[in-house]
Amino acid sequence: MAVANPVGPVDATKVPRYAGISTFARLPELDRVPDYDIAIVGVPFDGGTSFRPGARFGPSAVREASRLLRPGYHPELDVEPVAACQVVDAGDIACTPYDITRAVREIEEQALPLLGDGKKLVSIGGDHTIALPMLRALAKARGPVALLHFDAHLDTWDTYFDQPVTHGTMFRRAFEEGLLIEDKSMHIGIRGPVYDRDDFIRDHEFGFQIVRCSDIDVIGIAGTIQRIKDRLGDTPVYVSIDIDVLDPSYAPGTGTPEMGGMHSRELLAVLRGLDGINIVGADVVEIAPSYDHASVTALAGATLVFDLLALMANRDAIEARAAADEKEVAWQA
Amino acid sequence: MAVANPVGPVDATKVPRYAGISTFARLPELDRVPDYDIAIVGVPFDGGTSFRPGARFGPSAVREASRLLRPGYHPELDVEPVAACQVVDAGDIACTPYDITRAVREIEEQALPLLGDGKKLVSIGGDHTIALPMLRALAKARGPVALLHFDAHLDTWDTYFDQPVTHGTMFRRAFEEGLLIEDKSMHIGIRGPVYDRDDFIRDHEFGFQIVRCSDIDVIGIAGTIQRIKDRLGDTPVYVSIDIDVLDPSYAPGTGTPEMGGMHSRELLAVLRGLDGINIVGADVVEIAPSYDHASVTALAGATLVFDLLALMANRDAIEARAAADEKEVAWQA
Amino acid sequence: MAVANPVGPVDATKVPRYAGISTFARLPELDRVPDYDIAIVGVPFDGGTSFRPGARFGPSAVREASRLLRPGYHPELDVEPVAACQVVDAGDIACTPYDITRAVREIEEQALPLLGDGKKLVSIGGDHTIALPMLRALAKARGPVALLHFDAHLDTWDTYFDQPVTHGTMFRRAFEEGLLIEDKSMHIGIRGPVYDRDDFIRDHEFGFQIVRCSDIDVIGIAGTIQRIKDRLGDTPVYVSIDIDVLDPSYAPGTGTPEMGGMHSRELLAVLRGLDGINIVGADVVEIAPSYDHASVTALAGATLVFDLLALMANRDAIEARAAADEKEVAWQA
Amino acid sequence: MAVANPVGPVDATKVPRYAGISTFARLPELDRVPDYDIAIVGVPFDGGTSFRPGARFGPSAVREASRLLRPGYHPELDVEPVAACQVVDAGDIACTPYDITRAVREIEEQALPLLGDGKKLVSIGGDHTIALPMLRALAKARGPVALLHFDAHLDTWDTYFDQPVTHGTMFRRAFEEGLLIEDKSMHIGIRGPVYDRDDFIRDHEFGFQIVRCSDIDVIGIAGTIQRIKDRLGDTPVYVSIDIDVLDPSYAPGTGTPEMGGMHSRELLAVLRGLDGINIVGADVVEIAPSYDHASVTALAGATLVFDLLALMANRDAIEARAAADEKEVAWQA
Amino acid sequence: MAVANPVGPVDATKVPRYAGISTFARLPELDRVPDYDIAIVGVPFDGGTSFRPGARFGPSAVREASRLLRPGYHPELDVEPVAACQVVDAGDIACTPYDITRAVREIEEQALPLLGDGKKLVSIGGDHTIALPMLRALAKARGPVALLHFDAHLDTWDTYFDQPVTHGTMFRRAFEEGLLIEDKSMHIGIRGPVYDRDDFIRDHEFGFQIVRCSDIDVIGIAGTIQRIKDRLGDTPVYVSIDIDVLDPSYAPGTGTPEMGGMHSRELLAVLRGLDGINIVGADVVEIAPSYDHASVTALAGATLVFDLLALMANRDAIEARAAADEKEVAWQA
Amino acid sequence: MAVANPVGPVDATKVPRYAGISTFARLPELDRVPDYDIAIVGVPFDGGTSFRPGARFGPSAVREASRLLRPGYHPELDVEPVAACQVVDAGDIACTPYDITRAVREIEEQALPLLGDGKKLVSIGGDHTIALPMLRALAKARGPVALLHFDAHLDTWDTYFDQPVTHGTMFRRAFEEGLLIEDKSMHIGIRGPVYDRDDFIRDHEFGFQIVRCSDIDVIGIAGTIQRIKDRLGDTPVYVSIDIDVLDPSYAPGTGTPEMGGMHSRELLAVLRGLDGINIVGADVVEIAPSYDHASVTALAGATLVFDLLALMANRDAIEARAAADEKEVAWQA
Repeated sequence: MAVANPVGPVDATKVPRYAGISTFARLPELDRVPDYDIAIVGVPFDGGTSFRPGARFGPSAVREASRLLRPGYHPELDVEPVAACQVVDAGDIACTPYDITRAVREIEEQALPLLGDGKKLVSIGGDHTIALPMLRALAKARGPVALLHFDAHLDTWDTYFDQPVTHGTMFRRAFEEGLLIEDKSMHIGIRGPVYDRDDFIRDHEFGFQIVRCSDIDVIGIAGTIQRIKDRLGDTPVYVSIDIDVLDPSYAPGTGTPEMGGMHSRELLAVLRGLDGINIVGADVVEIAPSYDHASVTALAGATLVFDLLALMANRDAIEARAAADEKEVAWQA
Repeated sequence: MAVANPVGPVDATKVPRYAGISTFARLPELDRVPDYDIAIVGVPFDGGTSFRPGARFGPSAVREASRLLRPGYHPELDVEPVAACQVVDAGDIACTPYDITRAVREIEEQALPLLGDGKKLVSIGGDHTIALPMLRALAKARGPVALLHFDAHLDTWDTYFDQPVTHGTMFRRAFEEGLLIEDKSMHIGIRGPVYDRDDFIRDHEFGFQIVRCSDIDVIGIAGTIQRIKDRLGDTPVYVSIDIDVLDPSYAPGTGTPEMGGMHSRELLAVLRGLDGINIVGADVVEIAPSYDHASVTALAGATLVFDLLALMANRDAIEARAAADEKEVAWQA
Repeated sequence: MAVANPVGPVDATKVPRYAGISTFARLPELDRVPDYDIAIVGVPFDGGTSFRPGARFGPSAVREASRLLRPGYHPELDVEPVAACQVVDAGDIACTPYDITRAVREIEEQALPLLGDGKKLVSIGGDHTIALPMLRALAKARGPVALLHFDAHLDTWDTYFDQPVTHGTMFRRAFEEGLLIEDKSMHIGIRGPVYDRDDFIRDHEFGFQIVRCSDIDVIGIAGTIQRIKDRLGDTPVYVSIDIDVLDPSYAPGTGTPEMGGMHSRELLAVLRGLDGINIVGADVVEIAPSYDHASVTALAGATLVFDLLALMANRDAIEARAAADEKEVAWQA
Repeated sequence: MAVANPVGPVDATKVPRYAGISTFARLPELDRVPDYDIAIVGVPFDGGTSFRPGARFGPSAVREASRLLRPGYHPELDVEPVAACQVVDAGDIACTPYDITRAVREIEEQALPLLGDGKKLVSIGGDHTIALPMLRALAKARGPVALLHFDAHLDTWDTYFDQPVTHGTMFRRAFEEGLLIEDKSMHIGIRGPVYDRDDFIRDHEFGFQIVRCSDIDVIGIAGTIQRIKDRLGDTPVYVSIDIDVLDPSYAPGTGTPEMGGMHSRELLAVLRGLDGINIVGADVVEIAPSYDHASVTALAGATLVFDLLALMANRDAIEARAAADEKEVAWQA
Repeated sequence: MAVANPVGPVDATKVPRYAGISTFARLPELDRVPDYDIAIVGVPFDGGTSFRPGARFGPSAVREASRLLRPGYHPELDVEPVAACQVVDAGDIACTPYDITRAVREIEEQALPLLGDGKKLVSIGGDHTIALPMLRALAKARGPVALLHFDAHLDTWDTYFDQPVTHGTMFRRAFEEGLLIEDKSMHIGIRGPVYDRDDFIRDHEFGFQIVRCSDIDVIGIAGTIQRIKDRLGDTPVYVSIDIDVLDPSYAPGTGTPEMGGMHSRELLAVLRGLDGINIVGADVVEIAPSYDHASVTALAGATLVFDLLALMANRDAIEARAAADEKEVAWQA
Repeated sequence: MAVANPVGPVDATKVPRYAGISTFARLPELDRVPDYDIAIVGVPFDGGTSFRPGARFGPSAVREASRLLRPGYHPELDVEPVAACQVVDAGDIACTPYDITRAVREIEEQALPLLGDGKKLVSIGGDHTIALPMLRALAKARGPVALLHFDAHLDTWDTYFDQPVTHGTMFRRAFEEGLLIEDKSMHIGIRGPVYDRDDFIRDHEFGFQIVRCSDIDVIGIAGTIQRIKDRLGDTPVYVSIDIDVLDPSYAPGTGTPEMGGMHSRELLAVLRGLDGINIVGADVVEIAPSYDHASVTALAGATLVFDLLALMANRDAIEARAAADEKEVAWQA
C-alpha cells in the first residue's frame, strides 16, 4: 500500500452532494478502479438480533448519510485519507436472512478475497454477529488480532435459545476459536445492569479488559486513550464499534439502546487519540434506521467509518515514512 | 361453546382506557378465568421476513392500540362478542428468533393445546410465516380448512435462499402438506407487479382463486363478498389477514408495503359482509410498529382482531339458535 | 352582513406563504379591522379528553397549516369568501386547563360578545367539549339550532367518572338544555363498536338521526347529501366536525381515532354539496398535533374551516340576491 | 427499440432486496450496458419550490424505495417491462441549486443527449420546475407533445416574485414556447381553492382541459380514462405526475399538499387504463422525503415510475406487433 | 423486609424480551406473589399539566421500554435488586382524568394500602402533580420526609388559574402541609429563566436548597453527590425525578422541556453515588410518549426506576448487615 | 435606550402559554408599541443552502417553540430582559425564495430601517446566508464589527457553483467587503473533516481565530470564554449562531449536521460567560424544522435568542450604570 493516484470522491463543487447514486462518501465502486488499499463493505445481516431488528438497512442508511461527509482533509489526524490511498466502496455482501450459520459462512467467504495483499476492510453492519466472520477471515488472511471493542454490552455471553452465534455471543466464539490475541482485547463503553454477576467474571477469564462508562466519568478522554494504548501497543488490532456505545440521544437508531452512553465527542476524541495504532480491520455495526431520526445515527456511523479510514491511512503514512527512513538509514549505513 | 357468564374487559367508566397493564381489549388473561371460548395469542416471530423486519413487536403494539376499542356491542354484526362468549388473552407464544424450523415447531406445539374442545384461536403476528404452524395445529385439531387470505402478495412462492418456510412461501407448504381443502381457498387484495408471470399460473394450480384490487375497482364490496361466499359456503375457514392488504396510507407499519391497496372501510365492509361463515381460526399479521405512525396500523390490527372475534361469536350465536330450533323440532317430531 | 371592502389576507405574491406571523389563512387579526362578518377563533382546551390529549395545540397547528390555503376563489362553491365578507382571526379564547366547569363558562363568556349583530363564529378546538359552550352562546344570541355532527362517535353518552361535561357527553347536555331544535340533528360518519347496545337507542331518543360509514358505503356521497338536506331544510344549523370522522390515514393526529372512517374527498364533497344550508356557527375539533404527521391532519382542519367559511359566505350571497329580488319585487308590486 | 437481451435487475433470490448499492429497481447503471431503450434519470433540483423545499432528495428516496418493487411481470398491463426492453438508471443530472435559469439550462443540456435514437426518459424530481427543461429537450429531439398532467394544481400561473420559471408557472412557459401541441393537454386531479377565479379562465385559454377531483367523484375511473383517451388519441404525450395529485394521506412527503386528492388505486387504475397511449417522456416529481413517513410517498413515486415504464414497454410491444403485421401484409400484398 | 425467595422476572433466555404481556421489567404482578418488598405502580394522570399533556401514557410506555432492562446484577451498585427483595408490578392507579382534586384523593387512597409494613413504592407518572398524593400517603404511613427533587423547574409556584394543585405548585403545597422535613429538601438540575426573580427567594424560604445545572458545570458529579449527602445524611428521603431534569436531547418526550439539562450519564452517576441514602419512596414522572422518539425517554424512565430499586435494595442489604452486626454485638455484650 | 415602561409578554397566568397567536416569547408586535430597543425579526430564506433545505420555516418554528420560554428573570445573567427594555417581534422580512442576489438585497433593505437610533436586531434564520445582508446593514448603520461565530463550519469558502453568496461563503464576502473589524473575529465549535487542507490556511488569512470542538475538550468552558474575551474586549460584536454548532443530538433539525458538536449546556455556559461584551447584533440560523423532533432544535433556537436578548439587556444596564456614574463624577468634578 498505497495505490498511486487514487481516484477520489465525486467533486462536490460540480455535483451537489445530494445528487448521484449513493456510494460511501461518493467514492468509486470497487470495479471502477484498477486496485485499492481499503474497501468499505456493507454486510446487511440482522438475523442475530435479540431485540429490535432492522440493522440490515444499516449499509444503505450509512451510505446515504455519508453524502454529508467532506472527505478531503482530516484536521485532527492531519491526513487526507482518500488522497493518501485508494478507498473504494465494495458494495454489500449478499447473504441469506434466514440462516445464521450459512450467512456467517457467506460473509466470511465473500470477505476473504477482499483482504488479499494487505488490503484492509471496514465493514458496515448489519448486527454485531457479522464481526465473527470478519474476524475469521482476518485470522485466515493475517492471523489473530487484538480486539478493541466499543459497545454498551460485553457480547461474550454463551448462547441464546441454544444458538451459539448471535449478536450477544460472537466474541466468546472468537475467543474460543483463537481469533483473538490473548490478553490484548478491550471493551470500551460498557454500562448498565446485566443478567448475571458472573457475566463480568467470565468476560475477564476470556482475557478482556473493560473501561466502563462510569470509568470514563473518572479517567476522562485522556485516561481512556492511555489505557487503550498501554494495552494495545503496536499489536494488529481489529476495531469493532457497536453504535450503541453512544448514548441513545446520539444514536437512537439501534437495536438494544442503553441509557448513559458515551458522548459523540468523547468517542471521536478517543478514536482520534489512537493515531498510530495498527488497525488491520474494523466494523461499525447495529445501526437500525427505522428507529433513527433525521439520520443522526447513520451520520454518526458514516463519520466513524471515515475516522477509521483516516486512522488506517495515517498509520500507512507513518509506516511509509518509517520505511523511507529505514532505507535512508540502510543507505547511510 | 359458549362459556357461561364470561368475564368481560375492564370497565372503562371506572378505569380509564389508558390505565392498567395491557391485555388485548383489556380482556382477562387466560389463567385468570376458569375456561374460555376464544383466545387471542401473540406470536412475536419475524424471522421469516424478506424485507423490513420488526413484526416481532406486533403483538405488544396491537395490545396497546386495542385500548382504543370499545368492545361492547358491534352494530354492523349485531353482536356483543365478549358477552356472548369468553374471550381471553393467552399472552405470547415463546419461540426462538434465530431458527425458523425450530420456531415454527415451537409455535405449533404451543398453539395446539389452546385449540382443544373446539376452542378458537386468533393469533397476532409476527410475520406471515406464523400462519403455517397455526394451520398445522388446526389440521391436527380439526382437519384441513379453507383459507381466506387477505394480502397484497400471493405468498405461494417456492423458496427464498433455499429456505422453504418464509413469509412468502408458507401457503405453498400448507397446500403441499394437505392442510388446505382443495379448491376452496382465495386471495383477496392481490396487486402489483411480481417477479414472474408464472407466479399466477402456479398459484392457480395450487387451487387458489384471486380477487385482485383491480377487480375490486370493478365488482365493488358487494361483488367481493359474493365471490367469497360462493367459494366458501359453509366450509370451515381460516382467515389470514396480512395487514399489507391495506394501502400503505392505512397501514404504513408493515414489512413489504405495496401501493394501491384496499381501503380500511372496504376491508371492514367485506369482513362484516361475511357474517355467518364458519371461521375456525384466524390471524392478523405483518404489523411492524417501527414503521407505524400514531399507531394507525396497530389500531387497524386491533380492530380487525375484534371484528374476527365478532364474526366468530356471531356464528356461534347462529349455530346456537339453529341447534335450539333443531331440538325443538326434534321434540315436536 | 357584509362588511364593505373587506381586508383580505396577506398577498402571497409579495410575502411568501411561509413568512410572517401566523393568523388563520393570513387574514387580519380582529382588532386590525373596523368590523367583521365572520370570526375564526381558537379554543385551546383539551381537559375533556378521555384518551389521547393534546388538542390544546390544535389552534396553533391549524393556523400554521392554513399558510398552505390559497384563499381566493373556491371553484366548487363558486365564491370568493374573503372578498365577499370580512373574515378575521379573533385569536384564542383564554381558559383554564384545570377545571372543565370553569373553562366551559369562560369559553361561553368570551364567545358570546363575538356573536353580536348576526356575526358568525367558526371555532377551532380544542377537544369536542368546546361545542357545548359554543352552542350555549349561540342559543343565547340566536336561539336553538339544528346540529349537523360529523364524527366517528355519538358523543351523547351520559357521564364519565361522574363528569357530565366531557368530549363524549356534551351533545346529551346540549339536548337536555334545549340548545338543539328537536328532530333536526344528525350524526354523520358514525362507526365502530360501542360500549353498549343501548347507546344507539338512547341517541335516537334524543332526536338524532345517524348516517353511519357503512351507510355511506351504500348510499354514497349523493345519498348522504340528500339525507342531510331533507333533514335540515332551511333550519339554522351548527356544523360540528370532529376530525376523527375522517379515517386515521387522513387524520392520524387526533385523540380517539377509529378505523374505517370517511375519506377526505367524501367529506369535502358532502360539505360542498350542502351549499345553501343555513349555517349559523361551526367548529372543527379534536386535532391533536403531537400525533400528526407532516401536518396532514392540521391541513385537513384548515381546509375544512375554509370550506365552512365558503359555505357561510355563499349563503350570505344567496340571501343578498334574494333580498335584492324581494326589494325589486316590492318595488314592482 | 428494443435492445436485444436486455440486462435485468439484480436477482432478488440471490441478493436480498435490501442489499447492494441503490439504483432504480436495482437495474444496471447506464454505463454498464452497451445500449438502452429507456433511461430513468434523477433531477435533484428544488429551487423552484414556493412552500416546503426538499424534493432535491427525491431521486435518492425513490431509488431506495424502489428496492421494494418486484420488477418482473406487470399483470394489469400484461408486460415484462425490463425484459421487453433495456431500462437503465442514468444517475442524476448535476445542476446548481442556486440559480433557476442556469439549472434549467443544465438540465436541458444533460437530458438532450439521453434522448437520441428514440430513446425515452423518465425523470424523477426534484420539484415540478424540471418539467420545463425536459419538455424543451423533448421538443428539440422530437417536436412538441401533448401534456398529460396529474396534479392538485394547474401550474400555469404567470410569475412569482417576478420569476417566470418556478414549480407553479412552468407549464405556461411551455405553452408560450410552443412546446405543447395545442388543445391536447390536460390536467387531472385539480382541486381546492385558488388565488383567483381567473386562474381557470387563463388556463383554459392556454388550451388545457381539466378533470377535477370533484369530477372524478362523478365520472369515476372509467370516465376519467375515457376523457383522457378521447383527448389524446395517438398523439405523442408527455406524462407529468406531481405526487401531490394523490391525497396527503397517500403522499404526505410533498411540498404543497392539498386535501382531497386522488386515491392511490384510482391513480394506478387510470394510468393502467391508458395502455396503448403514445408516451414519449414522463416525470414523477415533488417527492420531499423529509415530510414522508415510512417511505410511503417515495414508494408511490417508485411504483408510478415503474408503471410508466410498463406503459412505454407495452406500447413498444404493440407497435412491434403492428409493424410485424404490416410487414406480413406487405409481403402478402 | 425482605421477602424470602422472591419471584424474579421472566427468563429472557426462554422467552424473548419482546414477548409476553408487559409488566415493569417483566416482574410478576402484585397479585401473583404472596408478599412483596417494593411495588412499582403507574399513575396515569396528567390533568395538572400546564403545557404539553400526554404523561398519562407514561406508565405504559415505561413498562414497554423496560423490556430492554437486564434486571439481574447492577455492577455500579453491586446489588441484585430483584433477587435481594420481592419487587412487583402493582399495575396502575385508577383515577379520573377530569378533576384534579378528586384524582389526587384517589391516588392517595390507592397508594396508602400499598405502603403497609414498611413496603416501598416507586411510582411512574403521570405528570408531577402525582408527587403530592404520594407524599401525603407517605406522611400518613411514615411521617414527613426529605425531598430530593431532580427537575428543570422548582415546582414551588403558588397557583395557576387559581388551581392550587398542579404540576408546578405541588411542592409548595407539600411544604405547607408539613409533608417535608424542614431544611432537608433539595432541587437538582434547575435551569433556565423564570417568570419572576422572587421565585427563587420564595423557594429558599420554603427551605429548599438548589443545585443548578450551571453549578454542576463547576462542581461536577462528585460535588453534586457531596452536596446531596451533606444535606440528607440518613434522613428518610423521597426521590422525585422529573424526566425533564435531563436535557431535551436525552428526554424529548416530556411536557415542558428546557434546554441545557443534565446528561444521562451525570444523572445516573449522581444517583449511583447516593448508595446508602435512606430512600423511602420515589417517583419518575413527566414522560409524555407522544413527543418521544425511539422510546429514548421511556427507556431513560425505565432505567431510572430500576436504579431507584437498586438503591432501595442496597440500602436494605446494608441495613440487614447492620442489624445482623447489632444482634451479634448484642449477643456479644 | 431604554424605552420606558416596556410592554411585556402576555401574562402566562391569565392566558395559557399554548394559547394565542404566536409572536416570539409572546412579546408585542412592533407596530403595537410606540418604540422599541430590541427587535426580533425572522428571515425565512433558505436559498443559499447546499444540502438539506427547510430553514425558511425556522422563524415560525422558533416562535412556536418560544411559547415554552418563561421570559421574566434570567438568573445566570441576573437580568429581566423584557422589563429592562422594550423587546418586540418585528415579524418576518419578505424576500424572494428564487434569487439569492435579490433576496440578500431585500433583507438588507428591510433590516436597515430597523437599526436606527442604536436599536438592535436579533434575527432568526433562514439559512446562514442571511448573516451577510445583516452585516451589510449593520456596517451602514454603525460601521464594521467583530464577528463571534458559533458553527461546525468555517463558512469562508469562496464560491459554490460559481455563486459567491451562499450559506458556506458569506463570511469571506463579509471580510472582503470590509464589514468585519480585522483580527477580531472568531469561529467557535468548528469540527470535522473539510474538503481541503487550505480551507484553514485561507480562513486564517482572513483574520479569523478558531476554537475547535477538540480544543474545548481540552480548555473547557472557562478556557473558551477566556479566549473569546481576550479577543473581543469591548469591540462591537455581531454574534452569529449556526444551530449546527450543537451536536446533532441537541439540534437534529438543521441542514448540514456534523457529529461531535457542542453540548447545549456548554454553549449556554459560554454565552452566559460573555456577560458584558458589546453585542450590537446577532442571529440564530439554520433551524430546519422538517428534520426536527419534538421541537428540540426550535426550542434551542428560542432559548439562544432569549439569551442573546439578556446579554444585550444586561450590557445596556451596565452601560446605564456607567453613564450614571460618569454623570455623577462630572457633577462631582
